[in-house]
Amino acid sequence: MARRSALPPVPDAAVLRARLDRAREAAAGTGLVIAPGSDLRYLIGQPGGSFERLTTLVIPADGAPALIVPKLEAPGYDGLPLAELGVDVVTWVDGVDPYNLAAERLGSSERVAVSDFTPALHVLGIRDALPKAEQVLAGPIVRELRMRKDAAEIEALRKAGAAIDRVHARVGEWLRPGRTEAEVGADIAAAIVEEGHTEADFVIVASGPNGASPHHALSDRVIEAGDVVVVDIGGPVAEGYNSDSTRTYAVGTPRDADVAATYAVLQQAQQAAVDAVRPGATAESIDAAARDVITAAGFGEYFIHRTGHGIGLDVHEEPYIVAGNDLPLEPGMAFSVEPGIYQAGRWGARIEDIVVVTADGVESVNQRPHELVEL
Amino acid sequence: MARRSALPPVPDAAVLRARLDRAREAAAGTGLVIAPGSDLRYLIGQPGGSFERLTTLVIPADGAPALIVPKLEAPGYDGLPLAELGVDVVTWVDGVDPYNLAAERLGSSERVAVSDFTPALHVLGIRDALPKAEQVLAGPIVRELRMRKDAAEIEALRKAGAAIDRVHARVGEWLRPGRTEAEVGADIAAAIVEEGHTEADFVIVASGPNGASPHHALSDRVIEAGDVVVVDIGGPVAEGYNSDSTRTYAVGTPRDADVAATYAVLQQAQQAAVDAVRPGATAESIDAAARDVITAAGFGEYFIHRTGHGIGLDVHEEPYIVAGNDLPLEPGMAFSVEPGIYQAGRWGARIEDIVVVTADGVESVNQRPHELVEL
Repeated sequence: MARRSALPPVPDAAVLRARLDRAREAAAGTGLVIAPGSDLRYLIGQPGGSFERLTTLVIPADGAPALIVPKLEAPGYDGLPLAELGVDVVTWVDGVDPYNLAAERLGSSERVAVSDFTPALHVLGIRDALPKAEQVLAGPIVRELRMRKDAAEIEALRKAGAAIDRVHARVGEWLRPGRTEAEVGADIAAAIVEEGHTEADFVIVASGPNGASPHHALSDRVIEAGDVVVVDIGGPVAEGYNSDSTRTYAVGTPRDADVAATYAVLQQAQQAAVDAVRPGATAESIDAAARDVITAAGFGEYFIHRTGHGIGLDVHEEPYIVAGNDLPLEPGMAFSVEPGIYQAGRWGARIEDIVVVTADGVESVNQRPHELVEL
Repeated sequence: MARRSALPPVPDAAVLRARLDRAREAAAGTGLVIAPGSDLRYLIGQPGGSFERLTTLVIPADGAPALIVPKLEAPGYDGLPLAELGVDVVTWVDGVDPYNLAAERLGSSERVAVSDFTPALHVLGIRDALPKAEQVLAGPIVRELRMRKDAAEIEALRKAGAAIDRVHARVGEWLRPGRTEAEVGADIAAAIVEEGHTEADFVIVASGPNGASPHHALSDRVIEAGDVVVVDIGGPVAEGYNSDSTRTYAVGTPRDADVAATYAVLQQAQQAAVDAVRPGATAESIDAAARDVITAAGFGEYFIHRTGHGIGLDVHEEPYIVAGNDLPLEPGMAFSVEPGIYQAGRWGARIEDIVVVTADGVESVNQRPHELVEL
């Protein structure tokens, strides 16, 4: 019983070793406990995976890190350069208390940081094994590393962006009147894999009034001539980095007379936000750049979410492009720019690209035209 | 941005309402906090889903339960009979502290139980919003309900079992010398969906020496004539209940001379364990029934895992069929019986069926023959 993929590509040992060193340094005396998932993949090159049995990377303030893993799952980590990374492998079998193994490795740390998506089962297991240590989240520590992408990570985001662009280029093959959102979504999901992703992580085909619900996924609604349709899709490539791109389509001439003028505002807002991206600009200023255009046109109340989210090994990660986030952007930060305008009960539209902050501006990894795509 | 599936089938409101009432009763004064996942699906009919924003079902010791959900994700729960269930929907928008919303609903509970797979992000968020409450796991409470399946749940397990049996019946189409495990695995993954699952959750094709690693998944190893190959596969059906079945195949005549005699022991052990299942037998006695046969034949040290795990909305859940678990089996409990014998560096074998405890014995949801399948 294990996940289905073969071993994914692993970054160079020197890259991983530097990440481990920086994580320990950023932790500043706090012990780190990293569960399977994207943080683990970032630090040792593989997300791992586990059910109820504890698998975790422990990075103590002093001494060697250890990967604590059930003995029968240990062969799954054989392809990693753990010895070169200085990571000990500590296996355990049913009957042993693995939380005590973690506690021994953490020693007398007064604070222990657990990765944000560690299951409660293990959070409380470690709490009980180290009752005197204060538990905090590792997210704020690890995100400082992860939100600044290196050249290889940016290349993987470009690869993912080009793959999802190829899917958007083909949407006209499937999006037709008389088909349900679910049928169109199934075709798109298959194409996401065909065009170079390891899986279709999410597929939104939000037609007509469903387009006004930003997180609508798929339904059995039959697409009609005149519908405006939001298509928001993505998935990871082999390196683990994700695509996420939205385009809005019109099935023939839009039914609602206000679509063209409203969409023009949205397109202008999205471009204004992309144009505002450069080192030193704050995350919230990018949100404001899009929101100001939409609000000035009188649609402020119909833009009901933040402008974007960071992306990398997770589809949603830091930095969040939202009011209140005064983080200054730096080269290597990658995030979505995805304003939307939602007309409840009638239609909605969103335009989303993933952009990367460069030394003096911005690069978009998505290249499809921003216009409403009339099919 | 959301998960790709349309709304799955939802149990009757009366069934869900009874589950919510029993959960509150079993919690005995402890407040329950249930994150998206199988526990949430069990209680309100849908697993939900979330990224970093808090979605959770709060069941206070007194007063109405509440589904706390980001406003823009709330439409995803429209298909549920939440009003009939007496569950309030409490939405929140970016900028609001959702942990305080949960804390208000929980009131002055001295103990708060969080579901086992709640991410640390939310475990610690709720801890900080209710600093005086003791945090415990909800798993021990919810599992008491979930491990006794009702008739509809057992029917869903039968459906999943029949679907995976149809895939095993077709393995000869794909498992041939000269193909890699990964190639065979991709074909099996497609067939898992074709035969009625919503996705292929896991695919193990462990050939030759890889068969001796119980959690090996797939690799680029090329399958050779004479290989013994462990194929362990499964996934959920639309109702959310999972299949999980292992058969062992031989590609032509096995290379190793000890395969036939060793496999006969394994087959006898698996049958002995299935035959031991009845109400009142303990979980550990089923483990012992298989292990005794294997140990008596001199292979005890090569059976390196427990005999089984419960299955339902999760692939692994209670009851675990393992030494030390003196839980008496009851009608409606469902679990795998999957002993294995692993000859490191050469070959391995495992036979796995999902069985359900009946009023006076046992029913297997898998019907494929247990013999080594020579292709």
